[in-house]
Amino acid sequence: MKNKIENLQLRSKIANVEEAALLIKDGMTVAMGGYTSSGYPKVIANELAKRKMNGETFKVNLITGSNIGPIDTLFAKLDLVNRRVPMIESKDMAMLINKGKVNYIEQQMNKMPQLLHSNSFGKIDVAIIEALKITKEGNIVPTSSVGMIQHFVNLAESVIIEINVSQPEELEGMHDIYNVGFYPNRNPIPITSINERIGEPFIRVNPDKVQFIVKSEILDTTSKIAEPDDTSNLISSHLFNFLELETSKNKNKYLPPIQTGFGNLASAIVRSFEKSSFKDIEFFCGILQESNMELITKGKVKAASTGSIHMTPKVIDMLKQNKQIIKETVVLRNNDVTNNSEVINRFGLISLISGIEVDIYGNVNSSHIGGTRVVNGLGGGANFAQNAGLSIMLLPSETKDGDISTIVPMVTHHDIGEHDIDVVITENGVADLRGKSDVEKAYSIINNCANTYKEQLLDYFKRAVTKVGGHHPQLLSEVFSWHQRLKETGSMKQNQIFNNHY
Amino acid sequence: MKNKIENLQLRSKIANVEEAALLIKDGMTVAMGGYTSSGYPKVIANELAKRKMNGETFKVNLITGSNIGPIDTLFAKLDLVNRRVPMIESKDMAMLINKGKVNYIEQQMNKMPQLLHSNSFGKIDVAIIEALKITKEGNIVPTSSVGMIQHFVNLAESVIIEINVSQPEELEGMHDIYNVGFYPNRNPIPITSINERIGEPFIRVNPDKVQFIVKSEILDTTSKIAEPDDTSNLISSHLFNFLELETSKNKNKYLPPIQTGFGNLASAIVRSFEKSSFKDIEFFCGILQESNMELITKGKVKAASTGSIHMTPKVIDMLKQNKQIIKETVVLRNNDVTNNSEVINRFGLISLISGIEVDIYGNVNSSHIGGTRVVNGLGGGANFAQNAGLSIMLLPSETKDGDISTIVPMVTHHDIGEHDIDVVITENGVADLRGKSDVEKAYSIINNCANTYKEQLLDYFKRAVTKVGGHHPQLLSEVFSWHQRLKETGSMKQNQIFNNHY
Repeated sequence: MKNKIENLQLRSKIANVEEAALLIKDGMTVAMGGYTSSGYPKVIANELAKRKMNGETFKVNLITGSNIGPIDTLFAKLDLVNRRVPMIESKDMAMLINKGKVNYIEQQMNKMPQLLHSNSFGKIDVAIIEALKITKEGNIVPTSSVGMIQHFVNLAESVIIEINVSQPEELEGMHDIYNVGFYPNRNPIPITSINERIGEPFIRVNPDKVQFIVKSEILDTTSKIAEPDDTSNLISSHLFNFLELETSKNKNKYLPPIQTGFGNLASAIVRSFEKSSFKDIEFFCGILQESNMELITKGKVKAASTGSIHMTPKVIDMLKQNKQIIKETVVLRNNDVTNNSEVINRFGLISLISGIEVDIYGNVNSSHIGGTRVVNGLGGGANFAQNAGLSIMLLPSETKDGDISTIVPMVTHHDIGEHDIDVVITENGVADLRGKSDVEKAYSIINNCANTYKEQLLDYFKRAVTKVGGHHPQLLSEVFSWHQRLKETGSMKQNQIFNNHY
Repeated sequence: MKNKIENLQLRSKIANVEEAALLIKDGMTVAMGGYTSSGYPKVIANELAKRKMNGETFKVNLITGSNIGPIDTLFAKLDLVNRRVPMIESKDMAMLINKGKVNYIEQQMNKMPQLLHSNSFGKIDVAIIEALKITKEGNIVPTSSVGMIQHFVNLAESVIIEINVSQPEELEGMHDIYNVGFYPNRNPIPITSINERIGEPFIRVNPDKVQFIVKSEILDTTSKIAEPDDTSNLISSHLFNFLELETSKNKNKYLPPIQTGFGNLASAIVRSFEKSSFKDIEFFCGILQESNMELITKGKVKAASTGSIHMTPKVIDMLKQNKQIIKETVVLRNNDVTNNSEVINRFGLISLISGIEVDIYGNVNSSHIGGTRVVNGLGGGANFAQNAGLSIMLLPSETKDGDISTIVPMVTHHDIGEHDIDVVITENGVADLRGKSDVEKAYSIINNCANTYKEQLLDYFKRAVTKVGGHHPQLLSEVFSWHQRLKETGSMKQNQIFNNHY
């Protein structure tokens, strides 16, 4: 590991994991690197878990860049967390939060720099960062994500660095870390194209803060993305028809940069670009998954900006085999740029949004089932929708074998407002909401996007218009009856109730 | 009027109002200048009203920069509007919209440039602009607002200019119009301080599009701002205590630029700055009202950026008497800068937000009474809250002599999400929501901001926690019962129901 620490002063901080982890004590606030479950520190977390399993009684407050699923699951199973900021991706952690046993401070990524700067989460005792190496000058080269680690090392009292010798050295040079700053000491972010470099390829750290450097050989735990199903393929196909039509209005069929998310629908969409007539595709994402990386290696991508890379064995192999084209195409940026309103807005992104449910006006619930139980957290989605050039909500119209309609009279929790959603696409079709009044939006969504719930939605909406009216007709007494029915009968379908009555 | 049109080619377009207004025919889409009911065109609108009163049958689609109240009221009374974009401020127009007689495409100001660019509202037939003068080169100097007039003259087939000879000539030179553009032809907006000039002091227009230039002598209809009442003064006093505390953490007690709104609460706040210890105040607003202008003339303001000026007789007098300090301090900008996420975010604004109701988690309804009847429209508020450095929601905790609690279990319409509200202030106190979990937010808002409804809110919330729980406890079956009760009994108070039962 020594040759990964080029700075001699810092080389003296090498320690074993047990010793380093002792820095973390009950009640402390720990900030961990990692972003979208990529490039997060592992060995100190494992050591903390070991201590807890061995009977030590302690809990920490945990702040991360965004979700770091495997750590959340580990810590949740051992009841290691007191307060959690700003996003999770773990059924076990969600369960504890929903039981009221972990205080979850759910927050949007774009709001985090200001909130950290205002000391909103209290003092950060220890920052733990995964690094590829430390340069001669003592700067930290991150691994497969950047996120908010610059803020964490700036604000924390102590820093522990995990040098991960298993992360591919090809990652070096891919990072671009830009310090946005705060008014009155703030300038325009000088970025005008997707993979332009505006910062430095490393994080700066005060060497006196670095208490310990430990060795890690553990790769990220990566989730397997399921193959796209028929519904995903249909949604993707509607999206491409829409994009073909939309870009045909532009000069040279110009396609703005695309923001894709994570999972099998995102994968289906990215794979469809290969077969499409679109060339010189640009991505501006929080994470590049296997499908994005494949498209890059095939030369279909002009430029890609990302907050992280999903480091599956296949992606690691691509990084080694296709080093040149990947390094020419991809820039790994910090959260302050990847989730910045200024940058999102400037690039006029096509933002692809997913969620739990959408209502007849286009409001989106992307975080809370039944309005109460959090799944992951709203993350960056709302900010992308608010600032994108074109925001497209994609979701299957029904789930649970048709017992749940994802199109409802009113969403039970609001993450993204109707005025920030331009288009809704389901497997049934496309509702283009731009330039429509609220009543026109409702008819467009119901008629184009719903399937077996179409009549039930029309029945609700027509009664809302007739009985209450207004610019935004809603029957407040009935607006959540679909969710109540689901709870009571196992289905949102009205005939289920009739069946129960007969 | 001739000397106000320095360009000789355009001087030949002078026409009388009747002739010019004939350009506007049934079914056309008309874009009118004006912003926050300031600097809107008047004489063509009056002529259209006259035609309608004389029996001509016609309607237009009306697009404006934001609200232009007096025109909306005039047009609503005469049933002159078919479709209305993007914001109103008129009880009469709201009534037509809520009856379903006008199709209202409510939209946020920051989304408008992209939507106009994508042709989302169809072709614009005629743009009508109020101007102070036309320069030798044929450029238009606007009057007391800018808004979206550059887009309107760019996109419209024909342009009519109203030269308003009654608007004070001191306005010349105060404008700064910057063309933001669209990716891939877009650069960072090069603004780094509040009253920095980055554009041109006029609008460019294709002279061939200008069909008619007419004379106007009519001043803006300005609304009288009521004197602050006790509640406004209490809210303002809590705000200043909070700002004192907040700025005491900063070097030199630095106060970020303030975004204030319109009305008597905004007035009370601005007036309080005079008595406060804050110096070198900066404003970044959609409108400067009398109180802001007074503070400027008193030398308390370092810089002010605005989309418009509320041109009351007193303000017109100030412009003439205090020309120098006002022109040094104030810059009148176009919507693309005044409502730009990039700029709002860069300045780390303290955004002061108002609304109809807030819920126990900090979600805000600023537009729809009872979730159905629109008042004005969400305007720019959500975008300010999303991008501000600190967003503060200010409202009285109760209205209608205590029959309405503005703090409710769930807002009936969502304009601003809980994660975009940092602080809630009522006449009762301050809830600082930063760094709090959802349950902690609820207790903070109820305990610090509510008054006579405190017990009723606590009763609801504790039952939600116990009965349903989750990260975001809500009783969906009961969540709008307060609004139902108001409708049925005239009050949200539970004892009203008990009284009815006994």
